Amino acid sequence: MVDLPSTPLLDTVHNPADLRTLKPTQLRQLADELRAEMISAVGVTGGHLGSGLGVVELTTAIHYVFDTPRDRLVWDVGHQCYPHKILTGRRDRIRTLRMGGGLSGFTKRSESEYDPFGAAHSSTSISAALGFAIANKLGEASGKAIAVIGDGSMSAGMAYEAMNNAAQAGNRLVVILNDNDMSIAPPVGGLSAYLSRMVSSREFLSLRDLMKKFARRLPRPLHSAARKTDEFARGMTMGGTLFEELGFYYVGPIDGHNLDHLIPVLENVRDAEEGPILIHVVTKKGKGYAPAEAAADKYHGVQKFDVITGTQAKAPPGPPQYQNVFGETLAKLAETDDRICAITAAMPSGTGVDKFAKAHPTRAFDVGIAEQHAVTFAAGLAAQGMRPFCAIYSTFLQRAYDQVVHDVAIQNLPVRFAIDRAGLVGADGATHAGSFDVTYLATLPNFVVMAAADEAELVHMTYTAALHDSGPIALRYPRGNGTGVALPEVPQALEIGKGRIVREGKKVAILSLGTRLAEALKAADALDAKGLSTSVADLRFAKPLDEDLIRRLLTTHEVAVTIEENSVGGLGAHVLTLASDQGLIDNGLKLRTLRLPDAFQDQDKPEKQYAEAGLDAEAIIGTVLKALRWNESADVGGARA
Amino acid sequence: MVDLPSTPLLDTVHNPADLRTLKPTQLRQLADELRAEMISAVGVTGGHLGSGLGVVELTTAIHYVFDTPRDRLVWDVGHQCYPHKILTGRRDRIRTLRMGGGLSGFTKRSESEYDPFGAAHSSTSISAALGFAIANKLGEASGKAIAVIGDGSMSAGMAYEAMNNAAQAGNRLVVILNDNDMSIAPPVGGLSAYLSRMVSSREFLSLRDLMKKFARRLPRPLHSAARKTDEFARGMTMGGTLFEELGFYYVGPIDGHNLDHLIPVLENVRDAEEGPILIHVVTKKGKGYAPAEAAADKYHGVQKFDVITGTQAKAPPGPPQYQNVFGETLAKLAETDDRICAITAAMPSGTGVDKFAKAHPTRAFDVGIAEQHAVTFAAGLAAQGMRPFCAIYSTFLQRAYDQVVHDVAIQNLPVRFAIDRAGLVGADGATHAGSFDVTYLATLPNFVVMAAADEAELVHMTYTAALHDSGPIALRYPRGNGTGVALPEVPQALEIGKGRIVREGKKVAILSLGTRLAEALKAADALDAKGLSTSVADLRFAKPLDEDLIRRLLTTHEVAVTIEENSVGGLGAHVLTLASDQGLIDNGLKLRTLRLPDAFQDQDKPEKQYAEAGLDAEAIIGTVLKALRWNESADVGGARA
Repeated sequence: MVDLPSTPLLDTVHNPADLRTLKPTQLRQLADELRAEMISAVGVTGGHLGSGLGVVELTTAIHYVFDTPRDRLVWDVGHQCYPHKILTGRRDRIRTLRMGGGLSGFTKRSESEYDPFGAAHSSTSISAALGFAIANKLGEASGKAIAVIGDGSMSAGMAYEAMNNAAQAGNRLVVILNDNDMSIAPPVGGLSAYLSRMVSSREFLSLRDLMKKFARRLPRPLHSAARKTDEFARGMTMGGTLFEELGFYYVGPIDGHNLDHLIPVLENVRDAEEGPILIHVVTKKGKGYAPAEAAADKYHGVQKFDVITGTQAKAPPGPPQYQNVFGETLAKLAETDDRICAITAAMPSGTGVDKFAKAHPTRAFDVGIAEQHAVTFAAGLAAQGMRPFCAIYSTFLQRAYDQVVHDVAIQNLPVRFAIDRAGLVGADGATHAGSFDVTYLATLPNFVVMAAADEAELVHMTYTAALHDSGPIALRYPRGNGTGVALPEVPQALEIGKGRIVREGKKVAILSLGTRLAEALKAADALDAKGLSTSVADLRFAKPLDEDLIRRLLTTHEVAVTIEENSVGGLGAHVLTLASDQGLIDNGLKLRTLRLPDAFQDQDKPEKQYAEAGLDAEAIIGTVLKALRWNESADVGGARA
Repeated sequence: MVDLPSTPLLDTVHNPADLRTLKPTQLRQLADELRAEMISAVGVTGGHLGSGLGVVELTTAIHYVFDTPRDRLVWDVGHQCYPHKILTGRRDRIRTLRMGGGLSGFTKRSESEYDPFGAAHSSTSISAALGFAIANKLGEASGKAIAVIGDGSMSAGMAYEAMNNAAQAGNRLVVILNDNDMSIAPPVGGLSAYLSRMVSSREFLSLRDLMKKFARRLPRPLHSAARKTDEFARGMTMGGTLFEELGFYYVGPIDGHNLDHLIPVLENVRDAEEGPILIHVVTKKGKGYAPAEAAADKYHGVQKFDVITGTQAKAPPGPPQYQNVFGETLAKLAETDDRICAITAAMPSGTGVDKFAKAHPTRAFDVGIAEQHAVTFAAGLAAQGMRPFCAIYSTFLQRAYDQVVHDVAIQNLPVRFAIDRAGLVGADGATHAGSFDVTYLATLPNFVVMAAADEAELVHMTYTAALHDSGPIALRYPRGNGTGVALPEVPQALEIGKGRIVREGKKVAILSLGTRLAEALKAADALDAKGLSTSVADLRFAKPLDEDLIRRLLTTHEVAVTIEENSVGGLGAHVLTLASDQGLIDNGLKLRTLRLPDAFQDQDKPEKQYAEAGLDAEAIIGTVLKALRWNESADVGGARA
């Protein structure tokens, strides 16, 4: 068992109402206990550590000053919400974070009234908060809406779109810019440089002095009068031109770990007649936990760890991760092909682009959290003759769908999409699942859509994509480790639209796309054992389909099952459509499609998620048996062969 | 016949190389002739008039100064590209704009080497130009990339994402901000207010004076030396803090109709060693054509018109447009429901939200070109108890796909999506077709997806959506006029997931979604006449499907055909999946799916586009006959009934 930290004050705080009964002088202790509790919990569960540590004081101060949940607090991305969860009635479950049946690693509406808006993808908070604020305005309700957004999240266009529309909210909207100069990787781009200049300017210090004096000098009843004047509100403003030009009152930068600064500033903002207000708070990711502060990534996402030493549990040695196989393969291909480029949207290590960047720094581009730009930038590179690989998680590629359609597919430009985290992803849950990409890409003319069945296939597909200059091509592969197959010495150029037979049988055909192939083979063995001779094909391509192979399998087997790590509208739908177009269904065809269910699945271990989804060997077997039993019960178990 | 304008100088200019042989003093005349030619052409074809008129001088100046097509010129949106097309070898076809087989109304790679990047959706130009610039940098090529982007387009997040990443391009990237204070509707938001402040500041005038003096004082050979100094480049800079903070050198504002200003400034920018540079050019939409200048929308999009009077050809009187039926219905519903809100992304009149806004100004929100924000803002409104309608064209909703998935579907929030321009759209071509929304929405858990068969159905569906508080719901409908059916006095709440039988038959079943219903009925009459008794169902819902109705139709008819104005993965795929899931295909099922083809279709009259797509009565009949002939040729023409 882990030793639990001593938290006598936190033990008295079950929700923000309790918190508000404390004296300001007690908040420092509370924050320290909150931090200790959070470290202890994440030591057990793993998860996002650095972000939460950076906002312990901010979380405390917001709930202390604002009237949550009536005031609506929206955490951007939400991976920094563990302290928030501890303070809002979920401390008893905090050691179930990210586990099956446990608390989500992000904010989630169904979990708590203190989570008015769920998150997990970046940069949605200001738009959502503006929705709350305007609804209150229309209803003449007095509640505020507070968005807390990191500087990394500010690089996404939708944050800017929201800021551009914020003025109408007036003082009902408060945006807290949590500037820790670090999202997951170090931030990039003009805005980041701008924020750094602001923070490093000497006004930062003089504001701190101002706030310190201010907080001490005025007794609470008195300063409530003073702080309502426009003079004061404007007095706090300094040099925040970019935000001011977009219509915000700018306050900051403020030391986000100093409660003596945070509390009075937030009180002023709460009571201000002007708005919207943007508060620029400077925090340190990993704050207050030495191993995190010392680490390059500030312990952004961690395994279980030893709280005393900070040592993380090591993953057992195993096959390489798909992301690294991709990154290393691409880096190698680029040694002899100077047209290959790689683009990531703030996920250099998650996508393996870090490996490429190390070898080919001038041809690697981290554009920040800006998937839309990433795709059209890649399209521009392609139009000028480069061979760009856009490496984006399936779920995040959704954010660039219009650019995929309009700038890539319609123009038939050879942008290569390396789609990581395809299918179910485990602890991150529904918001990070890559459930839809086969559907939303394979419906597009000109697109080639591949899925790798294992890491060796990923090597081949990366090479195939590099050579494919005639139009857009996507390769999808899952989160996590490969299957352990040997990696090819020499990558092979796959023929576009051709699958492969992995196992020959006679009665049952399983048509697999992606890494469910392993389950398909397991199912085939079991079916064979029952006397149902089973073929297994790895289709490799969702688009174009291997029509010859599919027609042959459908016409020479009694029952056929497709399986994919994708929702309705993907491989199964395309195979059915082919069968219908060609009249193959006219004479009776026991064709079934296994796919992700029509429901968003919560976090759990991936194998459990897939079992729940009905996408494992057992489900394949059940589907086959049911298909055979329905119409020829006499024949069950009796293979024709 | 229309009188053609006299264009002696333009007649000598067949491409930009010809243009560059002119003396600077001849450019005024050339621009005047170019403007006259453009007005004359659009008088014949209709199309986007105001935008092109605003950039006649800018187009002339860019091609005069820069080395196109080696220097890559990217027009944002591209609806202002008609003068560009005239100057780049396409004058002979300029009177075929937007017609079937004619020139596209936008830039298009396949049309000309002077169109290095196609457009039509807003705000892609800086990302694409950055791609060209970086490719040149990597290849050590000297070409520039020039993006011309309107102030309206600057409100979209992806423009900001691109600017945030632009610094790495150095002087290879030039962004020309064409500030006409008007995209389609008047612009909204903080950025717009900011630009207005900049333009109205007195520095505008003093810069004009500076440029005037500069252009006169220095003979050309001399100023080429002077203009290369950093001092000069910085000297042109004034107050452009927002752009400068993002890493640009800012130049402006400059009078975009004064060639004496434009040419030397562009020459300086071309030769500058610093970069990237943003040139802020102020133009007037509709410039130089009195009827356009006088019109509120500056003749943004026009019908054919009389060049002398400006009088546009009136559309023949006919049924109301779908967009207006939607807007008026929603406005009426909101009279008794104060939770209804309407959101548009810079398309108030195109979506009919203008009608709603007139009646309920506080509950109508034009967020600018910012679809991502629009959707998440609506999600925030819904989470706070409002009933928001997001009215966005199908093609533009692609830009908010991640927000639809992550903020609306996963959270199961009751955002209503009014999806206009579903299906093929005529003159705007492939970039504006609404071809994918059924596929990309119906794959999402929690979503309800409806399509209106006519304008009366649209009334019912709008009402149905208003009442649907349990999750997201979408209604799609086409561009253009309704069918002429009577509009209902009282809207009817449709049962979710229930279709209707429009016509009862016995042998053939046509399952229609959307406005192909009229063609389905035509086909049914013709099939009946051949002795093939035909049922027609209007399914109304692509999700959830009316399982009972579909099962009944599939099991009691010999052949069934689905038809939809959407690509593969939509209705047909879902019906096939249902039939497969339930084993209905096992015993033979002549089920076919008619859908948009796997190709992007160019502009033409919608009825021609649908004929080309195989989605008219003739195609339905052909599909039915083929299905029947294949397997029971003896039975053709002999109905069972």
